[in-house]
Amino acid sequence: MMAPTKTITTAGLILGLWAAAGSAQQVASAPASPEVHPDRRVTFRLLAPKAVEVKLSGEFMSGEKMLDKDAKGLWSVTVGPLEPEIYNYNLIVDGVVNIDPGNPNVKLASNPNTMGSVVEVPGASPAFYDGQATPHGAVQMRWYRSKSIEALRRVLVYTPPDYESGKPARYPVLYLLHGANGDETVWTILGHANLIVDNLLASGQAAPFIMVMPYGYGVPAGKLPRSGGDAAQTSARFTQDLLTDIIPFVQSQYRVYTDRDHRAIAGLSMGGGQALTIGLGHPELFSQVAGFSAALRAADFGKTFASTVANPQETNKTLRLLWFACGKQDSLFAPNQGFDAFLKERQIAHTFRPSEGAHTWINWRQYLNEVAPLLFR
Amino acid sequence: MMAPTKTITTAGLILGLWAAAGSAQQVASAPASPEVHPDRRVTFRLLAPKAVEVKLSGEFMSGEKMLDKDAKGLWSVTVGPLEPEIYNYNLIVDGVVNIDPGNPNVKLASNPNTMGSVVEVPGASPAFYDGQATPHGAVQMRWYRSKSIEALRRVLVYTPPDYESGKPARYPVLYLLHGANGDETVWTILGHANLIVDNLLASGQAAPFIMVMPYGYGVPAGKLPRSGGDAAQTSARFTQDLLTDIIPFVQSQYRVYTDRDHRAIAGLSMGGGQALTIGLGHPELFSQVAGFSAALRAADFGKTFASTVANPQETNKTLRLLWFACGKQDSLFAPNQGFDAFLKERQIAHTFRPSEGAHTWINWRQYLNEVAPLLFR
Repeated sequence: MMAPTKTITTAGLILGLWAAAGSAQQVASAPASPEVHPDRRVTFRLLAPKAVEVKLSGEFMSGEKMLDKDAKGLWSVTVGPLEPEIYNYNLIVDGVVNIDPGNPNVKLASNPNTMGSVVEVPGASPAFYDGQATPHGAVQMRWYRSKSIEALRRVLVYTPPDYESGKPARYPVLYLLHGANGDETVWTILGHANLIVDNLLASGQAAPFIMVMPYGYGVPAGKLPRSGGDAAQTSARFTQDLLTDIIPFVQSQYRVYTDRDHRAIAGLSMGGGQALTIGLGHPELFSQVAGFSAALRAADFGKTFASTVANPQETNKTLRLLWFACGKQDSLFAPNQGFDAFLKERQIAHTFRPSEGAHTWINWRQYLNEVAPLLFR
Repeated sequence: MMAPTKTITTAGLILGLWAAAGSAQQVASAPASPEVHPDRRVTFRLLAPKAVEVKLSGEFMSGEKMLDKDAKGLWSVTVGPLEPEIYNYNLIVDGVVNIDPGNPNVKLASNPNTMGSVVEVPGASPAFYDGQATPHGAVQMRWYRSKSIEALRRVLVYTPPDYESGKPARYPVLYLLHGANGDETVWTILGHANLIVDNLLASGQAAPFIMVMPYGYGVPAGKLPRSGGDAAQTSARFTQDLLTDIIPFVQSQYRVYTDRDHRAIAGLSMGGGQALTIGLGHPELFSQVAGFSAALRAADFGKTFASTVANPQETNKTLRLLWFACGKQDSLFAPNQGFDAFLKERQIAHTFRPSEGAHTWINWRQYLNEVAPLLFR
């Protein structure tokens, strides 16, 4: 195996390049980027001799930073030291916002304008979102025919480590929604939702549950609506998809409880708005509701949450959890703070958790880690 | 739901943009690209007023094509009509090979130099790789601790539509390997392996089996080896990972047969070389072996396949399938043709399937569609 393999692999590398770019002789190899140094500084590089201006943007800083060009046309910049974290960033080459072509770790998005590259800066010990030497659940990609949307759609389903063993016989379910421009994979790939729950289960901090991560737009082909009117129709159709296609599909395919006490909904940003609206609007279906940096508009509270506040005693009796969080540097902090005041005034029991930080995955991973232990207890 | 949702979604869109690119005011929205016209011509677009030269490369043509710039700095080019197919392509902006920032459909790769964008050109009727209104299997992302590689690794496992029903009690297993620069997701995302098998099962053309898609490099963090020496060590470690970690993991987690008659291995390019080498080198483990555009070197045949050709009668009795295919426009066609001659001379029963085409996914999807019906019959 040893000797021939070397040749095979080298040949394969060349062919891979050739297949991707059309012709081998024209491919300029991208330099390895980014480089995370032991002191947690990070260097970003791009070989672009013909470019006039290369800039960096990223979750680890506000604004943009210019890269410097050397004599060979290699652009580079070093930032940090950065706190241990998973960060998104983009390289902006002569005004074109794109991923870093030297980095295989890409943040996909249903809206290409929000695609980015990802850099992980490790700390001295594993983070709460790192995979560890403990039992791991599975994330299943499932395809289902949505009658609501008249399309074949994909949903991701996390089953905890003990699911395949057949016991417990049934599990509660958390429906976990992505934000605008995201898709059904982003809570796994960027959010590490499965690893976060694996870790909480391993340390006994959470009760086991199944997590269902749908695609949050009501359009057939995984394409974003391009206008506001489309967006409204689209979100209504997603609600229908969730309630009349996805929940029945999950209940037909997995060993889950089907009562409201064992069903929760949470989401981030646009999905946070959806989780609060759908969850509080359907107390017969959901007993626990959470919003992470939820997209809310104060002017709509009275109308959107009319049924929730109509009878506080009844709501407080049936709602087992209403939890929402937002970063103080997030432009959605004001409406979330407003929602807290709105609920307080109307004596609806809830937890509002103001945090540091902005509208980033840094917070959303943290919020999931905080809210998961509160579910199904 | 209707009225507030519009606002939520619009707010979310803006925030999504902001989060990805650092600051909203600097984000130039990428134009929708590509546009597939009804006559199957395809227009590619890029807004890059500062760029000097923008080129297109893709699986639908050889070489590169220049884009034209209009007064607003919008570059575009139209190609085709193209045959209905799924194609990879890249945009090359001032010499930097990158994905199309207007297209959310990205081909990920463990080697960033081979990342690309993907465009699907639909035909008049669904293709053999299109998801249809038939039962669908699941693709499970599983995390396992590899002792061979001393790392937490991910493997993707396809279970057929009837798996959850509990019958049949046990399934045969195909281990399906990716090519150089690929990863464990590429057979699903770009290869549509699950949808191809779903379709074959729905039409009764294949017997149900489980498909296991590992990461084919023996390195811990999903990083490619950067040198040839690393590559050899890496491939040997992957073999160990497959035989001593992955196979036992699969057999502990899924209802599968554990005898050689119910175990097959196949792969493309580098993974085709691995499948032929590992599969033929371990007749006690594998009874069916297939290579798709396999990376082979004629000079190594005698050594690599010594045990296979030592006793043709015994090999022909135990080997239930030896199948390999290659495109005539593939630079690996010669060694594959050479392997055909090598086996013929030594009277080893096999099928060599020369096809049209080059070293592309167009062929690999087709080969899987041809070989899957031959398995476990």
